[in-house]
Amino acid sequence: MPQLRIALAQVNATVGDLEGNASLIASWTERAHEAGAHLVVFPEMVLTGYPVEDLALRESFASASRAALGELAVRLEAAGHGSVAAVVSYLDRDEVGPRDAVAVLYEGRIAATQFKHHLPNYGVFDERRLFMPGRTLDIVRLHGLEVGMVICEDIWQDGGPITALGAAGVDLVVSPNASPYERKKDDVREPLVARRAAEVRAPLVYVNMVGGQDDLVFDGDSMVVSPSGSVLTRLPQFVEHLTVLDLDLPADAATESGEFEGFSVRRVTLSDAPLPPYPAVETPAPVQPLSECEEIWRALTLGLCDYVRKNGFSSVVLGLSGGIDSAVCAALAVDALGASNVHGVSLPSVYSSSHSKDDAADLASRTGLHYQVQAIADMVAVFVSQLGLTGLAEENVQARCRGVTLMGLSNQHGHLVLATGNKTELAVGYSTIYGDAVGGFAPIKDVPKTLVWELARWRNAVAAERGETPPIPENSISKPPSAELRPGQVDTDSLPDYELLDAVLDDYIEGDRGYEDLIAAGFTPELIDKVLRMVDRAEYKRRQYPPGTKITFKAFGRDRRLPMTNGWREGK
Amino acid sequence: MPQLRIALAQVNATVGDLEGNASLIASWTERAHEAGAHLVVFPEMVLTGYPVEDLALRESFASASRAALGELAVRLEAAGHGSVAAVVSYLDRDEVGPRDAVAVLYEGRIAATQFKHHLPNYGVFDERRLFMPGRTLDIVRLHGLEVGMVICEDIWQDGGPITALGAAGVDLVVSPNASPYERKKDDVREPLVARRAAEVRAPLVYVNMVGGQDDLVFDGDSMVVSPSGSVLTRLPQFVEHLTVLDLDLPADAATESGEFEGFSVRRVTLSDAPLPPYPAVETPAPVQPLSECEEIWRALTLGLCDYVRKNGFSSVVLGLSGGIDSAVCAALAVDALGASNVHGVSLPSVYSSSHSKDDAADLASRTGLHYQVQAIADMVAVFVSQLGLTGLAEENVQARCRGVTLMGLSNQHGHLVLATGNKTELAVGYSTIYGDAVGGFAPIKDVPKTLVWELARWRNAVAAERGETPPIPENSISKPPSAELRPGQVDTDSLPDYELLDAVLDDYIEGDRGYEDLIAAGFTPELIDKVLRMVDRAEYKRRQYPPGTKITFKAFGRDRRLPMTNGWREGK
Repeated sequence: MPQLRIALAQVNATVGDLEGNASLIASWTERAHEAGAHLVVFPEMVLTGYPVEDLALRESFASASRAALGELAVRLEAAGHGSVAAVVSYLDRDEVGPRDAVAVLYEGRIAATQFKHHLPNYGVFDERRLFMPGRTLDIVRLHGLEVGMVICEDIWQDGGPITALGAAGVDLVVSPNASPYERKKDDVREPLVARRAAEVRAPLVYVNMVGGQDDLVFDGDSMVVSPSGSVLTRLPQFVEHLTVLDLDLPADAATESGEFEGFSVRRVTLSDAPLPPYPAVETPAPVQPLSECEEIWRALTLGLCDYVRKNGFSSVVLGLSGGIDSAVCAALAVDALGASNVHGVSLPSVYSSSHSKDDAADLASRTGLHYQVQAIADMVAVFVSQLGLTGLAEENVQARCRGVTLMGLSNQHGHLVLATGNKTELAVGYSTIYGDAVGGFAPIKDVPKTLVWELARWRNAVAAERGETPPIPENSISKPPSAELRPGQVDTDSLPDYELLDAVLDDYIEGDRGYEDLIAAGFTPELIDKVLRMVDRAEYKRRQYPPGTKITFKAFGRDRRLPMTNGWREGK
Repeated sequence: MPQLRIALAQVNATVGDLEGNASLIASWTERAHEAGAHLVVFPEMVLTGYPVEDLALRESFASASRAALGELAVRLEAAGHGSVAAVVSYLDRDEVGPRDAVAVLYEGRIAATQFKHHLPNYGVFDERRLFMPGRTLDIVRLHGLEVGMVICEDIWQDGGPITALGAAGVDLVVSPNASPYERKKDDVREPLVARRAAEVRAPLVYVNMVGGQDDLVFDGDSMVVSPSGSVLTRLPQFVEHLTVLDLDLPADAATESGEFEGFSVRRVTLSDAPLPPYPAVETPAPVQPLSECEEIWRALTLGLCDYVRKNGFSSVVLGLSGGIDSAVCAALAVDALGASNVHGVSLPSVYSSSHSKDDAADLASRTGLHYQVQAIADMVAVFVSQLGLTGLAEENVQARCRGVTLMGLSNQHGHLVLATGNKTELAVGYSTIYGDAVGGFAPIKDVPKTLVWELARWRNAVAAERGETPPIPENSISKPPSAELRPGQVDTDSLPDYELLDAVLDDYIEGDRGYEDLIAAGFTPELIDKVLRMVDRAEYKRRQYPPGTKITFKAFGRDRRLPMTNGWREGK
């Protein structure tokens, strides 16, 4: 059977940086060429980064993307890599409108182009706002083999391009993707890709983006699956990676152009003659899946690292309360950026317990981050006495003096501030707006409190296994959580037990379940009323919260869009 | 010709408040009945409020909406108003998915229902995320007249329901709308409605929502237009209003059911016999359009008033700097809520000029709002000396001490904080995050600086005409704007002249124009580079800014969705 050597280029593109992304593609095409590949496949919209959001609508950006694609074709040829067919996805625009597009660059020219057909418009996706759907398919003939293309959502939806390629006939399908990470999504991807490979009766090369972009992180997890459902290779998650493999393909596909299942199929010949037989490289074995905690930890560190790096920062500052949330954020930041780029500040008030200060100092010495103490008593005293603040107003002013302190250090020293709130807190509004909520990025924004503890234990266990110092003080994990804004305060004064709270929130937020369903799930009416009221009333705080990496099925932000002014209350 | 008395009920519904909205509908139906109307038309999604955003996806909410509709039909009949056909739009859900729906309630039952076909998915709208499109049309026969329905976007898009109703044959079309206000939109609506009336060869009754909902305000501007294009009546903007008019209708429409232009048309008879002739009421003359400044001022006061009121607040607090932005916000708040519900705070620092304090006090005495002075010097001094802040960090800490002070007063006294930034400032990031940007609502968020001045002059002139004290001190209007965060600072140290800046921003933000177009518009490369760089880099600040009323074609927020991490820079 004819052979083909295929490279999967799982790269980390930056939104909007056409020049940087073009260089990235050129350098990985060079690597693919050096490895003897005949075909290299990049992720969806690798040239523009993904998601470009409303940049897709700006004509100047679409034309720059088109121009950059043409220049890239010439550049690859000039560098001697024009014989590698490069599958490069980009933003196009024609008389109909903007397009999520893919091209095959070959011998210095744009040999083929195709537009995404299925445009996701749910969850974090707004693609029907941004793109017009495609109705044509380009199948390229490369060394005598028929290679079809499908972009991302086109493999997630039934019917459409996959069905049409199956009807038209192909020897191989390649698929550029930008599929954001969420928990357990990799469990869904493999059977999906296998099903599509079977449907089209050809191996499917699935290449996903890697890297962080605002609230999203792309995990890679690229793979090649045979039509019989075997995973031939699978790339590691959360890192840039090039995998090269040789496929023996039957070359028995039909070669007709025309209409198939409502799509207009065009055949484009790049090279007709099959390759003479050559010794195959050994296909790298599929990378084994990560444990759930490791996968989440890697998602969070990459999301954080890329937000910091791609926005031109090199260091971060965060408040260390001695509690679990700030400890986990600090450990993530140290893993993401190195201890020398992390600045922790203990911000004790008159209500801070001695263990708070001790635990914060312990965390600093365990991780090696920069540490300082800035007592807030003097600042708080001026506000409280001048304005006559009492009760909640006095509690909040403490959190806000911490916020002003961190922002002051940020402005003075150029560190990005991290907000340390978790998803549970954000859900019920158990945070002070402009206080502990200040920050450019919120690393655990989408991590429920119970999972914060689980991650802390996991991260410490990993350190212990490696013979390293566990980063997170045991006391930060085991003590009862407290905001310490008044004497003796603990979270359970205001909130249900976290196990129970997270269970309700999971059903209400991620499951979008109503009152009757929550009762049926066994929660009491009192608990439901209390929790849902807190969630509904805190929408205004969430609107002003910093971005943070999505890891769940439904994150706050663009994933869950609810009105602030909202008279609806679930109830009997 | 047979007659029909039609009531247009331009009401202010609240998102999510099914019970409150049902009572509103019942009470306005009663008013319509008392006025002798045979048909009353309410705005789009009046039963749920609009936009419900992702509440549309929640099954419990959709079923509550359906149940509330059924109960409303029974309630209207029980109250003796069942003989008035009530056109009530609501959220429905069937086996296909959620629907933006309209029903005719008559004699205690839901006599007809229809789903919106064209789903807007641009600008502030996400309806393809939320709803499934309808393909059936119900035409009701009321007193021998054929009445068709079209929901909002179905009159904005060519083809679809209007064309189908024209082909099927109707005597009258009614259209429930929730069309958000923006500048000059009323100039577009009238010719559009006239064109659709001509297309369907029947009078068109257009009823739009009124009231504020988060970033949006609905202006009403309901009207009835004859097929020849005459505006028979037009309602006032920005107020709830009931208009009743009698139409003589030819009753010559076809009455067949079946397929028309791809829509399945069903005829539903409510009452077959034409009404005996009766004396017509005088049709109220069309309300004359407001001046542009008055229209914007009314939009801003209603948007502010409804955000405050519908979120359970009764009073607001804001910082008064003596400058134009805070003066205009205060004047808006006084017009929206009454002076007794507005609390102004002068927050002088060591750099504040005497005119700042004088102008703030002058504003307070002109408007009668509550006024206090809270010097921030003591607070600022603690942060600056303890943290060793200099330069920009020292400037920002002043703004943040003001923010903490306002939030402290808010927490202590229950006032909602208003952020006083304008659109120009927000565009270029000329504001301090967690400083002057704090607030629950930002009344002039979408008002460019040059328009802020224009509105101030207009508002003062109106007061003078009425023999009232102009609310805004002349000095606040005429002096050069300054943030006063360092000695002698004026805005033009950092920013281009505001006339020029607003011209560039209008092209870049609202026009979404690229570099070449901006050059062609006559701006210099240096100006373009400087302004665009500021705009692009400030996206992260905008994401954390409070909501404010949209008045322009493209407001920041859901109307303009751009990545924060963004390497794209317009240029040669």
